[in-house]
Amino acid sequence: MELYFHWFDLFGIAVFAVTGTLAAWRNQMDGFAVIVLASVTAIGGGTLRDLLLGVPVIWINDNSYFYAIFIAAVGTILLLRNRLTVPHNTLQIADAFGLAVFVITGTQKSLDHGTSVMVAILLGTMSGVCGGMIRDVLCREIPMVFRGELYAITCILAGVLYTSLLALGVEQLQAMVIAMFSLLLFRTASIKWK
Amino acid sequence: MELYFHWFDLFGIAVFAVTGTLAAWRNQMDGFAVIVLASVTAIGGGTLRDLLLGVPVIWINDNSYFYAIFIAAVGTILLLRNRLTVPHNTLQIADAFGLAVFVITGTQKSLDHGTSVMVAILLGTMSGVCGGMIRDVLCREIPMVFRGELYAITCILAGVLYTSLLALGVEQLQAMVIAMFSLLLFRTASIKWK
Amino acid sequence: MELYFHWFDLFGIAVFAVTGTLAAWRNQMDGFAVIVLASVTAIGGGTLRDLLLGVPVIWINDNSYFYAIFIAAVGTILLLRNRLTVPHNTLQIADAFGLAVFVITGTQKSLDHGTSVMVAILLGTMSGVCGGMIRDVLCREIPMVFRGELYAITCILAGVLYTSLLALGVEQLQAMVIAMFSLLLFRTASIKWK
Repeated sequence: MELYFHWFDLFGIAVFAVTGTLAAWRNQMDGFAVIVLASVTAIGGGTLRDLLLGVPVIWINDNSYFYAIFIAAVGTILLLRNRLTVPHNTLQIADAFGLAVFVITGTQKSLDHGTSVMVAILLGTMSGVCGGMIRDVLCREIPMVFRGELYAITCILAGVLYTSLLALGVEQLQAMVIAMFSLLLFRTASIKWK
Repeated sequence: MELYFHWFDLFGIAVFAVTGTLAAWRNQMDGFAVIVLASVTAIGGGTLRDLLLGVPVIWINDNSYFYAIFIAAVGTILLLRNRLTVPHNTLQIADAFGLAVFVITGTQKSLDHGTSVMVAILLGTMSGVCGGMIRDVLCREIPMVFRGELYAITCILAGVLYTSLLALGVEQLQAMVIAMFSLLLFRTASIKWK
Repeated sequence: MELYFHWFDLFGIAVFAVTGTLAAWRNQMDGFAVIVLASVTAIGGGTLRDLLLGVPVIWINDNSYFYAIFIAAVGTILLLRNRLTVPHNTLQIADAFGLAVFVITGTQKSLDHGTSVMVAILLGTMSGVCGGMIRDVLCREIPMVFRGELYAITCILAGVLYTSLLALGVEQLQAMVIAMFSLLLFRTASIKWK
């Protein structure tokens, strides 16, 4: 696995930790409960992906993920405590960032372990969707993925785009960035003009 | 693993996909959200079984399961859209079919991997019950398995029947079919005369 | 793994089975549904720990855990049916016992498999917290771990205490008992003077 792969994953984990923290805040949870929810949201998708692939879970021998979660969660709380105005759709937009990263890295990691393209896209989508799903179930909200059909379709299409780019011979890092930005753009647009 | 085993599993996955689709429909979910719920319901139990057994999950190298889910979900939606009258207990009866298949194949797969009979019956029951449990949690309903004690006891008894038949020297496919039909009959009866 | 380790785990599983049974009782579930909920609560945390560590799940080759769950669940039901007065906080106090055992044995098992101290404390906390979390999600209650920040912080501090004792050269069994009692004491105190 390449180095940038690790940084993408760290970034995705940090933004999902932010969404977990925001969700916990909205539900008036406190202190460490926030960090628990942030962690579960952040590592839920990638953990499920690794378990299903039968490879060691990503964070079992790497503490950096927890530092990322901790910094993201504490930073978010500090901002919220200082009553920084939180734009209306912050949770959904942060969720879109995490989604973009996890869907694509998840797809690539599956391909690396020899799955078919179809299973890779599925595992990519699960990596992106499941952290947020656990977050919403724990907060007893209808999971975001069920609130409109564009959410899941966007993930699948981004996976299709990514694997198509690879098939067309585009270099891996380039293909990743293009697919992530497409997913992000599409999600942000569909949040804005819903 | 025998060939008929694969077909049983495909069938169980298809009917659980139907129940996931019906549940999504009742909750007014749309398009791809339906397919997500159908998939989770269909592969949830078998995936958990395989993770617990420490063997590769059933669908990781086999696309046929996804074709089955897709066909089942799309077919169900088409029927529903055409306002085909859906009998009152359709969801429960489809669930009974999936249950019958998964409990018995799950029990056999565990035995194949050297677990004790007791653990095999438990894993069989989990294979059958967990897909529907995830479905119900995601739809925020009380899981079917908790709504009456006959649900779980039926699964366990079918597992006991199956392993007893094997112990008595009955041929594997025969024992499977007998145990599946017993479970199905008992579930249908308990739905009808509840 | 030492012999007392096995007994600690059995004890933790039995008390979590009791909490699952109590939760099922409060939600007016019946018979086998009780045993399902008791089992899920009891083995949920340890199972997740073992899956994440990539080792065979604890109960897959050992029936004794199920005997413990069965005895604990049936015993609890018999007591409840005989209208033995159940003290107000019984569920929370039994939960504290299970928590104390699972957090510490979970931490040690992770260390045994070569994780960093930080990951070990996290996995220990998850072992302790997740069984109860599944129980609460299935009963559609806000998970206990989210109702107040002391719950999670107590687990983490107990893990820190345990690993510190080990680092200071305290003998393993002694360190375990000290850390478990500290966690138990702190939880009971915070239940009492909440």
